[in-house]
Amino acid sequence: MFTRIDHVGIACRDLAAKIEFYTSTFGLTVVSEETNTEQGVKEAMLGIGETTAGTSYVQLLEPLHPDTPVGRFLERRGEGVHHIGYGVDDIEAAMSAMSEAGLRLLDRRPRHGSMGASIAFLHPGDIGGVLTELVQFGGIHPVQAGQE
Amino acid sequence: MFTRIDHVGIACRDLAAKIEFYTSTFGLTVVSEETNTEQGVKEAMLGIGETTAGTSYVQLLEPLHPDTPVGRFLERRGEGVHHIGYGVDDIEAAMSAMSEAGLRLLDRRPRHGSMGASIAFLHPGDIGGVLTELVQFGGIHPVQAGQE
Repeated sequence: MFTRIDHVGIACRDLAAKIEFYTSTFGLTVVSEETNTEQGVKEAMLGIGETTAGTSYVQLLEPLHPDTPVGRFLERRGEGVHHIGYGVDDIEAAMSAMSEAGLRLLDRRPRHGSMGASIAFLHPGDIGGVLTELVQFGGIHPVQAGQE
Repeated sequence: MFTRIDHVGIACRDLAAKIEFYTSTFGLTVVSEETNTEQGVKEAMLGIGETTAGTSYVQLLEPLHPDTPVGRFLERRGEGVHHIGYGVDDIEAAMSAMSEAGLRLLDRRPRHGSMGASIAFLHPGDIGGVLTELVQFGGIHPVQAGQE
């Protein structure tokens, strides 16, 4: 069902500072930066490792406003890991399978995710406190020159 | 520096129940189960995706006692993502680089991790609340028949 760890989503208060840290200290490379008003975040995807099913990423998330999901997470928990995104081949089939398994979907239909992906979130209360995202790759292959 | 997301470590109260969930609902395959008394956990590694630098895993962690790092995490935060492990080619070189970058190492020397890996933890206070682990693969290639 799940083909890879697509990304780990990390909530932060200062996206630019965290990008600087992850690139200079950990040697990651920024592949994409986007603002997603629907989700209330500005974000960066940093490539780390090629899998047979696509690239894995560290996703850095800064809320656009305090009254957003990531803003409320920061208020409640502080900075840290916000969610895990798993790659799936077919988002609608995966959503159906999760629903049939009794998991609550936070999205009725796939939403727009990073780099053209189709995504849907599962309720963390059904998955041991882990906010879990399904990610169908969007077909946008960014240039990753310089990635180690 | 970092070659891949080696694993995401997830703290749970009932390892057997979480293994059942991740295998039956998410389709992951158990690659290894170990008890690590030094770290005070029993754990399972579930394979998810091959990278060019090795397999990625979901690592499920149940504390052996409440007075262990994972036990205290559960008491303080509840179940959820505990840490991220990144693959490195040379653990000692990576530890030196992190130290030179001003990050606090929680381990002076590499420790024994899952499946023969050499590991070291970095202080989450230097990395935006993310407990971060360096992982040098231990050379044990488990059979992964049946993994999707």
